[in-house]
Amino acid sequence: MIKNPSISNGASPDAWNGPIDAQLRARALRVVPGGMWGHLNAAALPSNYPQFFARGEGCRLWDVDGREYVDLMCSWGPILLGHHHDEVDQAYAKQAAAGACMNGPAAVMVELAEHLVDQIAHADWVQFQKNGTDATTTCVTAARAGTGRRKILAARSAYHGAVPWCSPSLVGVTSEDRAHLIYYDYNDVESLNVALAESGNDLAAILVSAFRHDIGREQELPTLAFAQAARAAATAADAALILDDVRAGFRLHSGGSWETLGVRPDMSAYSKAIANGYPLAAVAGNDRFRDAASRLYVTGSFWCEAPPMAAALATQRVVQSGNAIAHMEAMGQRLRDGLQALSQQAGISIRQTGPVQMPSVLFDDDADVAKGRLFCNAALRAGAYFHPRHNMFLSAAHQPEDIDRALSAAAAGFEALTEAGVGR
Amino acid sequence: MIKNPSISNGASPDAWNGPIDAQLRARALRVVPGGMWGHLNAAALPSNYPQFFARGEGCRLWDVDGREYVDLMCSWGPILLGHHHDEVDQAYAKQAAAGACMNGPAAVMVELAEHLVDQIAHADWVQFQKNGTDATTTCVTAARAGTGRRKILAARSAYHGAVPWCSPSLVGVTSEDRAHLIYYDYNDVESLNVALAESGNDLAAILVSAFRHDIGREQELPTLAFAQAARAAATAADAALILDDVRAGFRLHSGGSWETLGVRPDMSAYSKAIANGYPLAAVAGNDRFRDAASRLYVTGSFWCEAPPMAAALATQRVVQSGNAIAHMEAMGQRLRDGLQALSQQAGISIRQTGPVQMPSVLFDDDADVAKGRLFCNAALRAGAYFHPRHNMFLSAAHQPEDIDRALSAAAAGFEALTEAGVGR
Repeated sequence: MIKNPSISNGASPDAWNGPIDAQLRARALRVVPGGMWGHLNAAALPSNYPQFFARGEGCRLWDVDGREYVDLMCSWGPILLGHHHDEVDQAYAKQAAAGACMNGPAAVMVELAEHLVDQIAHADWVQFQKNGTDATTTCVTAARAGTGRRKILAARSAYHGAVPWCSPSLVGVTSEDRAHLIYYDYNDVESLNVALAESGNDLAAILVSAFRHDIGREQELPTLAFAQAARAAATAADAALILDDVRAGFRLHSGGSWETLGVRPDMSAYSKAIANGYPLAAVAGNDRFRDAASRLYVTGSFWCEAPPMAAALATQRVVQSGNAIAHMEAMGQRLRDGLQALSQQAGISIRQTGPVQMPSVLFDDDADVAKGRLFCNAALRAGAYFHPRHNMFLSAAHQPEDIDRALSAAAAGFEALTEAGVGR
Repeated sequence: MIKNPSISNGASPDAWNGPIDAQLRARALRVVPGGMWGHLNAAALPSNYPQFFARGEGCRLWDVDGREYVDLMCSWGPILLGHHHDEVDQAYAKQAAAGACMNGPAAVMVELAEHLVDQIAHADWVQFQKNGTDATTTCVTAARAGTGRRKILAARSAYHGAVPWCSPSLVGVTSEDRAHLIYYDYNDVESLNVALAESGNDLAAILVSAFRHDIGREQELPTLAFAQAARAAATAADAALILDDVRAGFRLHSGGSWETLGVRPDMSAYSKAIANGYPLAAVAGNDRFRDAASRLYVTGSFWCEAPPMAAALATQRVVQSGNAIAHMEAMGQRLRDGLQALSQQAGISIRQTGPVQMPSVLFDDDADVAKGRLFCNAALRAGAYFHPRHNMFLSAAHQPEDIDRALSAAAAGFEALTEAGVGR
């Protein structure tokens, strides 16, 4: 609990927001509903956070007022190898200099598809899109086409996209949009069984996230029992097990996030990190759903755009052949250990959960996130961009000195909490 | 009717497909369901057409086997000013060198939003996405949010995207996905009135395409009576008139495709040509739906990607300040006149419909498109990329000599039809 209420909203006593950012927000408010939309809307962030950014290099970001941050969000996932990764950007530029958006794909689409089919353990084929939501929606539609059935089992509160069938908001959504969704609790085999019973003979798919990464709560890795139960149930019903790997894909395992469990989905949805920030999504599926996928009508004006595919191929070659994932794990462990030590020194308890390279930091007794916001605001001013509620993301560009700089900033965050009367 | 049945499938007597394209198709068939998906799938095209492309410059395209074409499809719309337009590509590169996909948008998002609000007659605000389908879906969701009602009136056979609520295919679609769609016939006020009556007190929106551009049939510009009736009905019900300007936007009028009619929608959906081939979509709306749009949860991993916004700003500056649209009209008229003359010379009647810069060419007595395919195959071999069923697209990069080259290729197309016994 924060004892000094004047700063409990996370606002710092003095105004810190940059003048250029403030001007842009005022202008945006006139020409964009609410000034910004979706997950990048700074209105949902602590008060000091900038809305607009000027530049990215490696794991560093500069806002429009020239302030530099060690970035722990990586654009909410897409930046896997760091901003302006040479190999990736050169692959993009080389393809762009030839042809980008044409009357059909470039040869690189086939090379990328072959690479992913080789790399992703369960994949016999891939299809490309632009948004993570395109990929999850395609998986669900293919599952219905392939089974002739309708029910989709999804975990309560899991994020699978931002269109009416799966959006976290019900604004503008009709009840029919979710008529065939049945909810279970992640990692809860009993609740999965209840949902299965409810689906009767109409089960098209079980949809699972790579791990439980709901906003504002502890992250949970899937238990082996849960993963195996989901796989067995889908197999028994000849339905699809769909792995939503949009958020975690290529950060945990290059071959699919459930490879460590030895449980393979029928289809998985990828986006975010697939091309190190260039816009691309993909569905990777097995032969059980190849025919269904070929019968769907799914398309988009830019889905065959060649340069992001070249960037994805370069990104995946780096991920598969190098130590990018092991490095992110090492950096994540360094961050986690450092935060744990700072927390103990300050006598302020935190809960760090989930994979270390996708860190989540929550404060105890902090239902209104006042502590989280105060911490984040102070850390931001000290040069690190943390998130108070959402899981964060590390990249292969983070080096020990970046993590240490983030930890210095975190120390300022704990200090601000101590000054506000939190802890001993 | 084609009298020589051996070539009525559009296949040329000798094999013409390039060896590299054929190899890539064979490889793609192993790793992509059906070898390709969606509107860029060459399986739906005449037999000589390549699937894979290597290079684009201005209005010219090169396939992977090095064959050069005057392109009349412009990537199905996105290429508005020609491939590799200097001003657009430089704007993209400049922004990309600073920051692309970051934790928030760059300043260019505000500049682009301000520019579009100034440029598009009905727009008080804009929101950005990646796919045309994202934009139409956002319009429909915002209309439901803003009215608290559910029914959407859409023209029968109109294309509004490739997700279950609007896809041209029913594969993988449930009846609930379209529970609140009511269909009318484009340009038919009486059928619109019937649909309105059916919607009762539950009308959220009337969705209209900029003009009737259904595949395989004559294009129809909207009648003033139809446009005014749709506007009046939406106004009377306090519902949204949504203009789907994804396909036609920025080719007919920089301020919105219904500006020539003096009829303004509440929201319009843009994508395709907005950034000359870079991936971007937008919804432009008026103040009636600003609050609704601000309450939606709509987002995507790459929707704030800055370089395509810089490219869009450059593209729109060229469109608004220059004579790009007038030039496309002049080139379209030159093509239409030339095709008409060739058709008369050959005694083979064609129907050319719609805006000249989005040409549609259909042959009389050609329900199976055998004539269209034969014509297109011969024209392709002579160096021009026509489409036998879909509307085509001209760009501001087409010059009189390009149109004349396309007409020479078309002459080869008419010749092939004559040899096959079509005409006098």
